[in-house]
Amino acid sequence: MGTHSNFICRRQFVIEWGHCDPAGIVFNARFFEFFDANTWIMFERALGLKAQAWPKAYGAFGVPLVDSSARFLAPARYGDVVEIASQVTEFRRSSFDLTHTITANGKTAVEGRETRVWVGRDPANPDKLRSQPIPPEVQAKFAAAASA
Amino acid sequence: MGTHSNFICRRQFVIEWGHCDPAGIVFNARFFEFFDANTWIMFERALGLKAQAWPKAYGAFGVPLVDSSARFLAPARYGDVVEIASQVTEFRRSSFDLTHTITANGKTAVEGRETRVWVGRDPANPDKLRSQPIPPEVQAKFAAAASA
Amino acid sequence: MGTHSNFICRRQFVIEWGHCDPAGIVFNARFFEFFDANTWIMFERALGLKAQAWPKAYGAFGVPLVDSSARFLAPARYGDVVEIASQVTEFRRSSFDLTHTITANGKTAVEGRETRVWVGRDPANPDKLRSQPIPPEVQAKFAAAASA
Amino acid sequence: MGTHSNFICRRQFVIEWGHCDPAGIVFNARFFEFFDANTWIMFERALGLKAQAWPKAYGAFGVPLVDSSARFLAPARYGDVVEIASQVTEFRRSSFDLTHTITANGKTAVEGRETRVWVGRDPANPDKLRSQPIPPEVQAKFAAAASA
Repeated sequence: MGTHSNFICRRQFVIEWGHCDPAGIVFNARFFEFFDANTWIMFERALGLKAQAWPKAYGAFGVPLVDSSARFLAPARYGDVVEIASQVTEFRRSSFDLTHTITANGKTAVEGRETRVWVGRDPANPDKLRSQPIPPEVQAKFAAAASA
Repeated sequence: MGTHSNFICRRQFVIEWGHCDPAGIVFNARFFEFFDANTWIMFERALGLKAQAWPKAYGAFGVPLVDSSARFLAPARYGDVVEIASQVTEFRRSSFDLTHTITANGKTAVEGRETRVWVGRDPANPDKLRSQPIPPEVQAKFAAAASA
Repeated sequence: MGTHSNFICRRQFVIEWGHCDPAGIVFNARFFEFFDANTWIMFERALGLKAQAWPKAYGAFGVPLVDSSARFLAPARYGDVVEIASQVTEFRRSSFDLTHTITANGKTAVEGRETRVWVGRDPANPDKLRSQPIPPEVQAKFAAAASA
Repeated sequence: MGTHSNFICRRQFVIEWGHCDPAGIVFNARFFEFFDANTWIMFERALGLKAQAWPKAYGAFGVPLVDSSARFLAPARYGDVVEIASQVTEFRRSSFDLTHTITANGKTAVEGRETRVWVGRDPANPDKLRSQPIPPEVQAKFAAAASA
């Protein structure tokens, strides 16, 4: 069984005109961009290391999705200041689960759930990516970030 | 209980350089754009009517998502010719379920499931959108398209 | 002849994985998103009013582009903290010119120039947009913002 | 002085809901995606080779922008069938100029001009990209495509 992380990565940002569709609300695919962006920011904050430095430090090149879902509960509009809160709900050997909650105008706008893998370049074929065990240090840094 | 549709909307398209991320594969949020685009095309084909003509014909202004999920099974890369196949698995009073299957290089790359609602401008407040019953004609046209 | 504004809207943000292409650098179209986003933020800051409140306050619904250009001088990569600095170089009757400078890693990455118009809903046909004179208050607020 | 190409790469596609902004028209940054996509398709058609095969065949990894401009003349809306016509107006040693014309509803919607470079991985540092001379075969294939 995996390990839960208590580290919550919160960030506020403004919904852009270009995020929105002809109904005046955020186009659905954009929310998955927001999930992705905050996943990277969460790792950068927890690890204290820019994403570009991960390959050297941890052998990792990215955290691609294997499974994703979202419930769209309330709309967000351009100019809205929204908050995204992301959390790893379970670290496993080479994959992990996350939740993302986006709040707009005091309501939960979108709830997302993702499963991602920890991948690096395949040593046998650097043009390919392969899942890799998540280094123990990564979980340790998330634990430290949660209690900071 | 709702009604299943046998109409499958298939379309081939080419993965663009701009769809792909630094790992050289389609960035996950793009798949939700592909789902959305093919949903509109499916309705245009089944209804025999351009999306811009829906408000006048059916009062509908859009088909926003309430629930979405995707399983990412195999990567797709720029230059790949992919196929998307979309189908309404259940029409209900004012909402419907869809599946989207994206195939690349002979393998299923992504499987998506969505629930969407049929919305139009709220007569009481044209700046707001409100769910509306799906006109019986819509299901009838999907049935006709399936047997065409 | 138009009026120059000395108000410079600076903002820092982080380049996302999803902004970047298989060459590992920001995909060119994204820079035009950055230009657009900072244009709105510049107006919100100068006017002291959220974009959603413009239609009521000024009759304006948007600031669409009529002309845009960019010179790509140095790449920006995911994880880079970049700065965008935007400025209205000339206000005219119903249009205005802007420059956007994006700096990454201590170098100018992209220089953009845009011409935009001030548009609102056409009273004769609310489904259409029409250019409108920029209210004098708008320039006055930009002048005040520059000296703040 | 460079060489003009008479090969025009035309393609029709449908404007998607997700391409459009709250004004109901294509969001400006999307046009630069359209330019980029058709540039790749033009090269694939002229060279008779998928983009993924270019690195092996020509050492090229991409055709990044150095300069881009667009004039937005008429709007395009979701559901519009638009045509893009792209052409290399000048091939030089390691760079080339293009034009892109997007037509919607019988009118020119957008005119784009770009300068791009032909780049490959730097042999001294495969993590970096470097401009490279455009192989003579590339111009020869564009000439052959124009007269086909």
